[in-house]
Amino acid sequence: MSNLTEIIKKIGPLDKKSMDEARARQDTLTKPQGALGRLEELSIQLAGIQGKPIPQITNKAVITMAGDHGVVAEKVGNWPQEVTAQMVANFLHGGAGINVIARQVGARVVVVDMGVAGQLKANPKLLSRKVAPGTKNMAAGPAMTREQAIKAIETGIEIVTDEVKKGLDIVGTGDMGIGNTTPSAAICAVITGRPCAEVTGRGTGIDDQLLAHKIEVINKALAVNRPDAAHPLDVLAKVGGLEIGGLAGVMLGAASQHVPVVIDGFISGAAALIATSMAPQLKDYLIAAHVSAESGHKILLKHLGLRPLLDLEMRLGEGTGAALGIFLSETAARTLAEMATFAEAEVSEKNEES
Amino acid sequence: MSNLTEIIKKIGPLDKKSMDEARARQDTLTKPQGALGRLEELSIQLAGIQGKPIPQITNKAVITMAGDHGVVAEKVGNWPQEVTAQMVANFLHGGAGINVIARQVGARVVVVDMGVAGQLKANPKLLSRKVAPGTKNMAAGPAMTREQAIKAIETGIEIVTDEVKKGLDIVGTGDMGIGNTTPSAAICAVITGRPCAEVTGRGTGIDDQLLAHKIEVINKALAVNRPDAAHPLDVLAKVGGLEIGGLAGVMLGAASQHVPVVIDGFISGAAALIATSMAPQLKDYLIAAHVSAESGHKILLKHLGLRPLLDLEMRLGEGTGAALGIFLSETAARTLAEMATFAEAEVSEKNEES
Repeated sequence: MSNLTEIIKKIGPLDKKSMDEARARQDTLTKPQGALGRLEELSIQLAGIQGKPIPQITNKAVITMAGDHGVVAEKVGNWPQEVTAQMVANFLHGGAGINVIARQVGARVVVVDMGVAGQLKANPKLLSRKVAPGTKNMAAGPAMTREQAIKAIETGIEIVTDEVKKGLDIVGTGDMGIGNTTPSAAICAVITGRPCAEVTGRGTGIDDQLLAHKIEVINKALAVNRPDAAHPLDVLAKVGGLEIGGLAGVMLGAASQHVPVVIDGFISGAAALIATSMAPQLKDYLIAAHVSAESGHKILLKHLGLRPLLDLEMRLGEGTGAALGIFLSETAARTLAEMATFAEAEVSEKNEES
Repeated sequence: MSNLTEIIKKIGPLDKKSMDEARARQDTLTKPQGALGRLEELSIQLAGIQGKPIPQITNKAVITMAGDHGVVAEKVGNWPQEVTAQMVANFLHGGAGINVIARQVGARVVVVDMGVAGQLKANPKLLSRKVAPGTKNMAAGPAMTREQAIKAIETGIEIVTDEVKKGLDIVGTGDMGIGNTTPSAAICAVITGRPCAEVTGRGTGIDDQLLAHKIEVINKALAVNRPDAAHPLDVLAKVGGLEIGGLAGVMLGAASQHVPVVIDGFISGAAALIATSMAPQLKDYLIAAHVSAESGHKILLKHLGLRPLLDLEMRLGEGTGAALGIFLSETAARTLAEMATFAEAEVSEKNEES
């Protein structure tokens, strides 16, 4: 825990001076004040996180973490568990949605095995950090031990720290794990205090009957484990996932090193609930890329106090939404950095009298 | 008019076969069906417009048209008219918002003088197509003659046709013109049939008093000119603008050549109202990039039957929103083209029984 405690301590308030300077510069650029809307706010947030009056978004990465879930034994979804491992292979070959969008955005994709059930083929591009070969069935007992939960978070911190060493101006979070909307909904129910039925959605597209069963399984997991909302590690261990813990670690590690974090959809959101429960100041370092089609995501974002940039009805995960959010963050930073000022462009300013 | 009539005739229905093939391919890609949400719909629309089962977005341009407005004599805004010409110079030097975002997106910016009041300094990058040195004051009589309105539209068609010859897979529309939310609101009121007060907004940021005055001026222009909603050329001539006519031409010319058009904010929307009134089929070729902070824009988009991709509270014009819409269109096309299929990636599909 010592590493984790230290990291949390390092997450301080945003740099107000850089934010003030960024805001002042926005108002000198050749446009009506505020005309770039949320991109202006975003540029100021980025300035505060990076501690630079003109933030820079050049080195970009999406960290996509994979894990399996014992709760699939309860038949909560409609895809076979082997798909987690197969999709990891797809990521490594560059054929998944996240690969395509990350290429367009100019972000590298860091693929991590946090806890895939089977043995994955060795691949130099794969970070093998398996904490366990999947979680246990949370409907029958805790998904993992407290030690595994800590290990998952610390692994996320280590991985993002390695990426910072390579150069990292912004990081997006992504996930892959058959069944992982189930633990995410459980985490969301515990931490937001809302009923399971409200925060549980159709994941990859289940029907009404299966949705009712999924809600029942989550209720059972909460009854069996009684996770303590005041103790995020307890929640993660009892009803979480290894990739969810890893992503919480990525968020904490990035923020502690002044790197903005673009969070993806519902699973990344669940990780953010865990991470911000540990370090409330982290919230200021998070950028919500989009609101996903998963029904609990709106509730989750509201609880985090985050307003999504996009609403494209996406529900793919992998970091696909986060990659688009990274693009918009770059737009925000580049307009602040590269637009001419009124003085530079010799453009007249607004009339004083109006 | 012969050229214009022919162009309108060429805008046919989208290519259903390509759309069916695109839709079928989407469902073979390694993701749950529909998981890319609106990006999937967009990819299918692009397929139908381009007439290709796998649409391609490589050659991208934003056409930014500038014009001045005689109605500024009524003091409807708070920026001096000289800013139109100064901003054109800023576009040519690469310092404006549209330059920065277009660079990021990989789109060229085509800057056109459709009707700037003053004489612009010659610049090899500027397309000088001045139909008139600004419109006349529409509160006192027609903004332009019928011949000028036709000339503006035909100029837009010619310009986009030249761009198609250079290679153009998608085009965005952009505008610059001090005072141009005033004619845009007038067009919007006439064509949607809504009261001026509902469709008139704060433009570059005017206060309540100036807003009330602006609405009064538009009402006066409508009373003086009595534009006929059933005749879009009459509306454009009486209460329109030269850049608005030019952009309507860009839309018609692009669609007639199977090039998708990403429309920007309120001014591009007013141009779309004119153009779709001439060619209702054009609607299918339009992609609404965003809903701007300008209050009438929502009403306008609803009338067009278009759903914006983004809501970032932007209100800069220039094509800045359109450039972001071009980026998302490219994402839609690239995911369709580049993602692996289940068969290619050897990923198992969804269980049959669920």
